[in-house]
Amino acid sequence: MDTPDAGARADPQGAGGEFELIARLTRGLESRPDVVLGVGDDAALLDLGAPDLLVATCDAQVAGRHFMPGLSSPGEIGHKALAVNLSDVAAMGGEPLWALVSLLLPPGVDATLLDDVYTGMRALARRFGVALVGGNVASTDGPLAIDLTLLGRARRGAALLRSGGRPGDPLLVTGELGAAAAGVLAFVTAPGLHGIPPDLLERAHRAMAAPEPRVAEGRALAASGAVTAMLDISDGFAADLAHLCERSGVGAMVDAARVPVSPVATAVAAADGRDPLGLALTGGEDYELLFSVAPDRVDVALAAVQTAGGSAMVVGELTPPELGLRLREPDGSVRPLIPGGWDHLRKWP
Amino acid sequence: MDTPDAGARADPQGAGGEFELIARLTRGLESRPDVVLGVGDDAALLDLGAPDLLVATCDAQVAGRHFMPGLSSPGEIGHKALAVNLSDVAAMGGEPLWALVSLLLPPGVDATLLDDVYTGMRALARRFGVALVGGNVASTDGPLAIDLTLLGRARRGAALLRSGGRPGDPLLVTGELGAAAAGVLAFVTAPGLHGIPPDLLERAHRAMAAPEPRVAEGRALAASGAVTAMLDISDGFAADLAHLCERSGVGAMVDAARVPVSPVATAVAAADGRDPLGLALTGGEDYELLFSVAPDRVDVALAAVQTAGGSAMVVGELTPPELGLRLREPDGSVRPLIPGGWDHLRKWP
Repeated sequence: MDTPDAGARADPQGAGGEFELIARLTRGLESRPDVVLGVGDDAALLDLGAPDLLVATCDAQVAGRHFMPGLSSPGEIGHKALAVNLSDVAAMGGEPLWALVSLLLPPGVDATLLDDVYTGMRALARRFGVALVGGNVASTDGPLAIDLTLLGRARRGAALLRSGGRPGDPLLVTGELGAAAAGVLAFVTAPGLHGIPPDLLERAHRAMAAPEPRVAEGRALAASGAVTAMLDISDGFAADLAHLCERSGVGAMVDAARVPVSPVATAVAAADGRDPLGLALTGGEDYELLFSVAPDRVDVALAAVQTAGGSAMVVGELTPPELGLRLREPDGSVRPLIPGGWDHLRKWP
Repeated sequence: MDTPDAGARADPQGAGGEFELIARLTRGLESRPDVVLGVGDDAALLDLGAPDLLVATCDAQVAGRHFMPGLSSPGEIGHKALAVNLSDVAAMGGEPLWALVSLLLPPGVDATLLDDVYTGMRALARRFGVALVGGNVASTDGPLAIDLTLLGRARRGAALLRSGGRPGDPLLVTGELGAAAAGVLAFVTAPGLHGIPPDLLERAHRAMAAPEPRVAEGRALAASGAVTAMLDISDGFAADLAHLCERSGVGAMVDAARVPVSPVATAVAAADGRDPLGLALTGGEDYELLFSVAPDRVDVALAAVQTAGGSAMVVGELTPPELGLRLREPDGSVRPLIPGGWDHLRKWP
């Protein structure tokens, strides 16, 4: 939510980018006691007077921007429309519950294609205990778009924000990085690369077209009490680390040697003559969780992720803000870590 | 929600219309105790364990379909994007609380236009106590679209569904009908009509571009305990009456002489040589509330609407289902009342 992924950076005239646009449009919103957390995190936290807080987020997938109809199957398109929202609820440590699905349909769209989109979406919904409770259908002269609002719940005081990180907190990330960007590279921007093992090529496609949200990991981390700040990586590790640091008022040092580069990224980068670390740090759309923990709680956090069936790695630590975002190379040298996703994702060819 | 308005009937190949499409895509959804009411009413009712139920709905406004950028001001576009959702929450007798706004932006959209869209939306939000709590921005190669999810609350057991109407229940409607359709006629499909008083023309424009949702009336009716079934009129009086009758398993007799035809509709219809009753019954987008009440509670319901600052009229009554939807003409003759909105709204020129 309100951190649109790298696949569709909006860039209105005069607004200077989408984060600036969101800030501009939502400037001066009044605070209210029932709005525990509004614009500016992965999801809103709302107080309906229940024991738990309501978690609410929305994210849209647009044909030609977030997915290519010829590259993603209809089932994968439906999967991803829900998955990116599940990832936002996961990033709060929340439990997803209910989805509203809004379809914008171009003229003459085939109903059987929509059947398949819903089959993919409903399969993922069942796996994560999400009920489809409503939605809307409207026609458009533009491309197919699926806008999904996901609602869930989080224990009062246990939801994980972007803003709680402190200098000295170890920085961790779940899973592996760079596979989705490797998929975009192998299937969209540089198709026809040679020498990529077929199983890795298939994993690259899946990472790009049907990402797996880290819901169980997020809930386990929220329950662990170890986490000080968390978000999901949709814009790329470096860009989302910058978001965490900005909201927490800290800097960060990332240890290049510890970054869990996906073997998929390594294979695709090698075939294209690129540095796989670049795919891992700035490729985007990995939908892993990036989080900081209290210095004495690393083991607790790692155990929580493991119990949830996942994996996580310490990749660095938070620092005082004036040090900015930095990367320690394997040879010990230190350089600035530049945020920013892949600009070629801006508009797919 | 899931009753898209007459301005944008989607018509995918092989699906036979959008209500059939929604039924097809959501077939076989499992029931869950936390989903008190799912797909098929104006909004979903969800149980988070709070004293009140959560009300959730979404509706999209697409340029060229739901609004014409040259005809509606940016402020009106923002107003309407929220108003149509407020109307859905009103139709449940709910209290609106929180909105998530998802923007699809065409290339090169002007940020100052978006400022104005948000100014209109935020002004209406303030009037109805709605907090903007999140959203999303994505780019598209298609037209500007604003998809809005509105969340609110309703007292447990007091939310008003479409399904509670019984034969013999008087049928009522708030406000006046046909003004929005008169606006579409005067400004879109038959521009240049002569002899319409300027103040009525202005009202026609406002009804089309910036409808007023009946939130206070809806809440007062829910609190009155008099209502047996309710929905909002977005698809047109006759089409939405058909929805109420279908969900309640009843028929209806409407008394033509009692239908509150807007003077706006009368003036515009006269200028175009039409029957104003046609605009009132099938024009669509009036965003008034259509409801049935227990036979001995008409006065209670009328008093509730009046206390909320609105007006309502008895326009007929529910009947056994086998009698269908009927219209009693002023001369006493009876004919079938044919649902269906204005097909020329399907795609604006």
